[in-house]
Amino acid sequence: MGKPTGPIGHIAIDAMGGDLGPAEVAAAARLALDDPLLQSDLILVGQPDVLGPLLTEHGIASHPRVKILAASEVVTMDDKPLQAFRRKKDSSMGRAIELIKTGEAGAVVSCGNTGALMAGGAIRLRTLEGIDRPALGAVVPRANGYFILIDAGANPEAEPLHLVHNALLGSHYARVILGIQNPRVGLLTIGTEEGKGNALSNATHEMLKRCGEVINYVGPTEGFQVFTDHCDVAVCDGFTGNLLLKSWESLSKFFTNTLKAELKANPLRMAGAVISQGAFKAMKARINPERYSGAPLLGLKGNVLKAHGSSNRHALRYAILAADKVIRADFLGQVSRDAVRINALASAAPIVAAEQENPVSAPASDNASPSS
Amino acid sequence: MGKPTGPIGHIAIDAMGGDLGPAEVAAAARLALDDPLLQSDLILVGQPDVLGPLLTEHGIASHPRVKILAASEVVTMDDKPLQAFRRKKDSSMGRAIELIKTGEAGAVVSCGNTGALMAGGAIRLRTLEGIDRPALGAVVPRANGYFILIDAGANPEAEPLHLVHNALLGSHYARVILGIQNPRVGLLTIGTEEGKGNALSNATHEMLKRCGEVINYVGPTEGFQVFTDHCDVAVCDGFTGNLLLKSWESLSKFFTNTLKAELKANPLRMAGAVISQGAFKAMKARINPERYSGAPLLGLKGNVLKAHGSSNRHALRYAILAADKVIRADFLGQVSRDAVRINALASAAPIVAAEQENPVSAPASDNASPSS
Repeated sequence: MGKPTGPIGHIAIDAMGGDLGPAEVAAAARLALDDPLLQSDLILVGQPDVLGPLLTEHGIASHPRVKILAASEVVTMDDKPLQAFRRKKDSSMGRAIELIKTGEAGAVVSCGNTGALMAGGAIRLRTLEGIDRPALGAVVPRANGYFILIDAGANPEAEPLHLVHNALLGSHYARVILGIQNPRVGLLTIGTEEGKGNALSNATHEMLKRCGEVINYVGPTEGFQVFTDHCDVAVCDGFTGNLLLKSWESLSKFFTNTLKAELKANPLRMAGAVISQGAFKAMKARINPERYSGAPLLGLKGNVLKAHGSSNRHALRYAILAADKVIRADFLGQVSRDAVRINALASAAPIVAAEQENPVSAPASDNASPSS
Repeated sequence: MGKPTGPIGHIAIDAMGGDLGPAEVAAAARLALDDPLLQSDLILVGQPDVLGPLLTEHGIASHPRVKILAASEVVTMDDKPLQAFRRKKDSSMGRAIELIKTGEAGAVVSCGNTGALMAGGAIRLRTLEGIDRPALGAVVPRANGYFILIDAGANPEAEPLHLVHNALLGSHYARVILGIQNPRVGLLTIGTEEGKGNALSNATHEMLKRCGEVINYVGPTEGFQVFTDHCDVAVCDGFTGNLLLKSWESLSKFFTNTLKAELKANPLRMAGAVISQGAFKAMKARINPERYSGAPLLGLKGNVLKAHGSSNRHALRYAILAADKVIRADFLGQVSRDAVRINALASAAPIVAAEQENPVSAPASDNASPSS
């Protein structure tokens, strides 16, 4: 399951979701097929009377590597996750996920309702042997490259072992998507000294230290290190991860908007901005979210990639290419093999922690400063 | 305690801490005294043989509004918080905090070891009646203004009532420092629909809804809303808050460095950047952390302001002016009056929550997406 079905894999695309609708999905399919890197075939799942004309429009109606699978219903952004699957038996999202279950597709890509995709993926596919719960990954630009943030929002509460699983899933995803052979894994916490985080991060730290055979754990990662070249996989629970990721997007917008407003404040500044516009374009390309818009729901018995709801054709194209990479790299097989080992390592006898100062009545983190 | 002692207040300044040392503190004292807004007198606490010549250098050795209080020892950045206070009985930080306890000063400003300041403040001053624990505030720029993030790192674990206290402390600090009469309080969480966060945020949400008489609660705030004009006080636990704040600082540096590198990539871009340099200066001023570098440790029986360890004279000047505002506004009296009311409201019978879909076996947050 999840491996290429035959000489090449198949990617099931939920063609009805997303803010921009099926027209953008069809355009993305064309872009992906034109990309020499794509090795998988595409199965667009949705309403044939809608999709047919769109494929014709993009010149891929009779393309040998595209087919349409009929699904009459659409999960909307307003649908509640579980209801979407219980009530809409013939949804494009549900049918796409089923193609993974039957082995007809090696991955599914959707820019539809995230909660529904997570619920549907978890219920229909279940998790890989040894992995308790799925986690959302996200690829984020930083100095000298990119890192994987995991969990970016699948599970708001977590136990230490879940974070260890996130570390494993994130490591393999970094190998496949970022091409990093031995990705450095950091545990997001406050205070780089041992024992300075919260109960969850401290317990996870102890577990991760025992998993050196499988995970290249580089230790606690503080907030100020996140956008430096410090780690390739940043591990946290889904509550923290989602707040971090979305607030970073919010800050980037604030930063960009403020800069734009200042550059437009008078004719002189505008003239300068026109002259140096290459810098702004390069900057935009550098931190372009389209390039890595496929947030994978990792840990399931099947590759499920969530693209941003507002994904345009370019963002979707990259999500399709990411799915292709994940299929070809046998991501699921790699995780499955390591999951058994990591569970044994994580549950081994704990290494005795170094003695620490642990004040009772006072907040005493040397590193909990917002400012030092 | 904490109120102005006489017609004007006194600010105790730990003059020996900080990365830039006492010379920068002396320079900041001069800048603050030159500021017509400053109404309090200054007490510089530290080694007289070091401070004396520095005050002479800045022309304030015999200034009527400055005096030196001798303290022979210095808490270093490497000192462990509790040890710093147990072993260094005559530290500048410890003596400065004592001036609050004795009523000789209405506030203390330090750019020294954060953990030691928090531990010392909590142990020597204790918390205000009705407030369980102190919290660190931080002023952060966003669209159309600034907001207070609280707790920015004092307590990595929190109970719902602690977050309600953070909401109260943050509200009064926003009034004093940002001049907002009825600050909007948002609870940082994932998913704006009720019941979509974690156990802590959901329980806190229920409590905050009952505190409308005292707190202008505008509901859950998602990450993507943080840098929009959505709330004036963003409430969270210290683990989340510290990771958020430090990662924002890290992202800002990454953003700025990337932009600088792109603008320097070739002569044309450099020329354009010179022409529009006013925009970059304005941008820097807009998001200037110096302006709000005093992170208050709120909730203690005394006003304790932590300035960034690397604070320069300008940042320290603003921290001193913030301390002055806090003293004059009787921040402590205001919080004390409301703390009793808010504890009664928060512990009142809960309002029955609306029925929600709450899947058991699946991750099902509609809003937990990193990307939608």
